[in-house]
Amino acid sequence: MPESSLKYKPTKWIMTILKTIFITGTAGSGKSLLTSKLYDYYTQNSAFAAVLNLDPGVENLPYTCDVDVRDYVDIVSVMKKYDLGPNGALVMANDLIASKIDDIRSEVERVNPDYLLVDTPGQIELFAYRSSGRFIVENITSEEKTSIFLFDGSLITTPINFVSLALLATSIKLRLNLPTINVITKTDVIGEKLQDILKWSSNIRALENSIAQEADGETYTLTTNILRGLNLSGFAQGLIPISNVTGEGLVNLEGALSRILNLGEEVED
Amino acid sequence: MPESSLKYKPTKWIMTILKTIFITGTAGSGKSLLTSKLYDYYTQNSAFAAVLNLDPGVENLPYTCDVDVRDYVDIVSVMKKYDLGPNGALVMANDLIASKIDDIRSEVERVNPDYLLVDTPGQIELFAYRSSGRFIVENITSEEKTSIFLFDGSLITTPINFVSLALLATSIKLRLNLPTINVITKTDVIGEKLQDILKWSSNIRALENSIAQEADGETYTLTTNILRGLNLSGFAQGLIPISNVTGEGLVNLEGALSRILNLGEEVED
Repeated sequence: MPESSLKYKPTKWIMTILKTIFITGTAGSGKSLLTSKLYDYYTQNSAFAAVLNLDPGVENLPYTCDVDVRDYVDIVSVMKKYDLGPNGALVMANDLIASKIDDIRSEVERVNPDYLLVDTPGQIELFAYRSSGRFIVENITSEEKTSIFLFDGSLITTPINFVSLALLATSIKLRLNLPTINVITKTDVIGEKLQDILKWSSNIRALENSIAQEADGETYTLTTNILRGLNLSGFAQGLIPISNVTGEGLVNLEGALSRILNLGEEVED
Repeated sequence: MPESSLKYKPTKWIMTILKTIFITGTAGSGKSLLTSKLYDYYTQNSAFAAVLNLDPGVENLPYTCDVDVRDYVDIVSVMKKYDLGPNGALVMANDLIASKIDDIRSEVERVNPDYLLVDTPGQIELFAYRSSGRFIVENITSEEKTSIFLFDGSLITTPINFVSLALLATSIKLRLNLPTINVITKTDVIGEKLQDILKWSSNIRALENSIAQEADGETYTLTTNILRGLNLSGFAQGLIPISNVTGEGLVNLEGALSRILNLGEEVED
């Protein structure tokens, strides 16, 4: 067991109920790497985790897939068969996945893990905004489902960028209709900026003050009005910092997942 | 001049200032088709319009490009050179475009149109959330810039979907920092649903009532709090229905563009 997890009480894994975790975020935010880290984390803690890759267009993955949509939808064949470029082929391939849901579900049931980690397609909009994504979320047989949304730390260079990503996260949460844990990745590369971002995420007044310093009047008004709406709904709480490189923060993420997925069924050993 | 435009007073085009219009929206929302329709519209009304294609991965376009990033960034070469799949190649190609901004700018200046229509990449997140998109928006030399965001009518099957897309539109508006006109496309295929959507976009109470009928308590609270924030900022006003097939609504869109781009300089003939 990694040293860092000793800060938390040990969890006894409940073996009978499949729990599914969808890992979402913009292209390049670190979805596949976090999937691999979570897989290692669960495995090291004696839980039976498996990975479902939903990206038909990915070349290299940092983990071994247990179930892989590329076995059902081959992007190069789609490009050739329908005479499409990479854009069009990715759109079509993502839509085709939905038609393979019975096969994918059967494979998952054969593997029968405790935790199914679902690595979603590189471009989040293909998954979140086309109807196939929601269809897949609804049709994976699982007692409990949750989503992790990755804020790409390297994209948050200003407080307005932070609000923009918070809106995207909320938009996707509404679209997928899943309880969502918000995570900020790449904490090892963004340095001192992390403290600003965590302050913005936990203190709306600090965020508004930072926005006032950089934005024009119209943008300030738009942003602060939206922020109050988000804040009233408790959005801003609990942005979890993660480094996929050092593994820092994984234990906090696992704690947040447990609270959602085990619904209070955690027991001490 | 198309008959429909007779409803509006004729516009005298101001020839000296380049106005740039970025056409944005999710994959498949109809960006390229609207670009082509707007090009035809301006041309038929004796304005000098030109099209800049920013999508390095598109195969077929419904218009002739005046400036084309595919002349600078070839996606197949990127795939081969860096041994990338279509996902990774699209991400890298979009980032590479930013390094070609001087060439693109020079070409646009040589063409020297009154209206530059910029067709953005198929997947909006590659443009909006990676730093290259904002960089390009800032570095096109133009006196006035605006953005059109396309709500894909076929994706709005529920009021929650509508709010989700409204959040995405707002997120992108904040990210690109451009005045934005919201348009709903595919009005010819969504039928009676259009009336619901237009009601939702103009009457927050009607939208809240529709959400109450379909959503659980938590989602209802989240959504309505956010809506009040958006509404306070005047977001919901002015969703313009467009059919790229029949051309219906284009004249209203042109009117909205004129109000932003000409800053009241419209004069009667």
